[in-house]
Amino acid sequence: MTSVPIALGPARTTLLEQAIAAGGGTVADLDSARALVWDGEPDGFPERLPDGIEWVQLFSAGVEEWFDSGVFERHPGVVFTSAAGAFANSVAEHALMLLLAGVRYLPEHIRARSWRQAEFFPHVGTLRGATVTIVGAGGIGRELITLLHPFGVRVIAVNRSGTPVSAPGVVETVPAHRLSEVWPRTDHVVVAAPATADTRHLVGKAELAQLKPTSWVINIARGSLVDTDALVQALCDGTIGGAGLDVTDPEPLPDGHPLWDLPNAIVTPHDSNPPHLRTAAFADHVTENIRRFVSGHDLIARIDIVAGY
Amino acid sequence: MTSVPIALGPARTTLLEQAIAAGGGTVADLDSARALVWDGEPDGFPERLPDGIEWVQLFSAGVEEWFDSGVFERHPGVVFTSAAGAFANSVAEHALMLLLAGVRYLPEHIRARSWRQAEFFPHVGTLRGATVTIVGAGGIGRELITLLHPFGVRVIAVNRSGTPVSAPGVVETVPAHRLSEVWPRTDHVVVAAPATADTRHLVGKAELAQLKPTSWVINIARGSLVDTDALVQALCDGTIGGAGLDVTDPEPLPDGHPLWDLPNAIVTPHDSNPPHLRTAAFADHVTENIRRFVSGHDLIARIDIVAGY
Repeated sequence: MTSVPIALGPARTTLLEQAIAAGGGTVADLDSARALVWDGEPDGFPERLPDGIEWVQLFSAGVEEWFDSGVFERHPGVVFTSAAGAFANSVAEHALMLLLAGVRYLPEHIRARSWRQAEFFPHVGTLRGATVTIVGAGGIGRELITLLHPFGVRVIAVNRSGTPVSAPGVVETVPAHRLSEVWPRTDHVVVAAPATADTRHLVGKAELAQLKPTSWVINIARGSLVDTDALVQALCDGTIGGAGLDVTDPEPLPDGHPLWDLPNAIVTPHDSNPPHLRTAAFADHVTENIRRFVSGHDLIARIDIVAGY
Repeated sequence: MTSVPIALGPARTTLLEQAIAAGGGTVADLDSARALVWDGEPDGFPERLPDGIEWVQLFSAGVEEWFDSGVFERHPGVVFTSAAGAFANSVAEHALMLLLAGVRYLPEHIRARSWRQAEFFPHVGTLRGATVTIVGAGGIGRELITLLHPFGVRVIAVNRSGTPVSAPGVVETVPAHRLSEVWPRTDHVVVAAPATADTRHLVGKAELAQLKPTSWVINIARGSLVDTDALVQALCDGTIGGAGLDVTDPEPLPDGHPLWDLPNAIVTPHDSNPPHLRTAAFADHVTENIRRFVSGHDLIARIDIVAGY
């Protein structure tokens, strides 16, 4: 098998050069390359790619900024892949951490300065036997299903098509257009769907009202999927048990925002996938996609320009 | 199969009556019973059991108080079983919650009142690829191994005999007498062994000194297994990353104790297995042991009077 010329930009790093080589590629100039691995933002991306470029591998998992940038429209004949899935492990682990911390009442434990056992007892819950709805069955959602299974959780998976998600612990798959049926019969909700016009404020006042006073809402996707004002109100009123948010709307969450002070809100500043974990995960993703490109197999995380993610 | 007469004390509850019936027993007076399910403390336990009692099922998982009470010595011919294992699910879930919260830097996130992303990034770790030593491969330890597997953790299991623990994710089983070899090559430690003279201060100054500045020590067993003074010193000095403690020594932890104020200590007041979760789990345990008693099979969690647990 001949080595396939792959360009690497905006800068070359040893880690990604090795990742390209491991997949069967050779780092080459853009003009002689068949593909481009772009380890940067839309800013600085080539205005017009050479005709020889068939495929571009982007670094980010969420690609709203890339849609806004017009890069896809300028290159209708080029296949773009995101890093969706590459960072799924770390984000799914973070989601489970937020859910467990919420269900077992950790925030108040962290604030405690004395042994408040009798007071805390009734607030410590368990995931065992709980029903958890995961909205979005992409890389993060599927990884989370795997993590949740040994806890004895019953998962309701929500995806666009409703095509059954076949994984241990999944008791039901619901298509997105029937999501409204799910709220009254779930214990907790994890939002792991892409940000699109359709998913904006997917969790709003009406949805929160149907959850339980012990329900936790976890968002590790994008802030826009949850109606922040409605969430703050539900947290103040005790309509739900709490919220674990790695993403917020607005983001960054400004100082003085009520979410900082609510005892039943956990905010992590979009750090579920920190740079030091991301780099190694992206290199593995690049190797796998180059291996597929070289051998003519379907690429992972191909961006659907029409669907918008 | 005839129904076996089982006594229930100190009080009869509907849940346990049903549990006894479900296992093939009938609730009977102590004098006519072949076994006793004791849903209480050593205080109030019969001074002398009738000769017809062959077996006593106790409610607690840790049985130090029962050894101290002299109940076992007064009844050398009776088999005693604890509730060890019955509560393993909830305690193992709690242990994993503490470990995840520590590794992903949750305590400081909970205290934050502003978006400190750049500051937090380097502190957010992952369990993926980490080596976790679990000291004690009883019910809790084994359940924890099951929970940890999908996270991509390498587990070192420590038990008395060193007989290999065969479970996915266990890369090595180390006998307790070789525990000293483990400290330099583990990332985190979970203490899940019974409290005996041999396990007192199992984690002390010398052990902590061999761990990493990112290591978390989790104790969900008994406070005496960890040398509290040495732990406080290690937490102050940054010798280890942090500690998650559901049990402490002394317990309850008194107000003003340094562990309450250390930012890298998480204390939960022995509430990993709260009463509302315990009752249902104990009922299931009773049913299973009565089923075994009725059919002449080995009982679960038989107390070893010589070994002391």
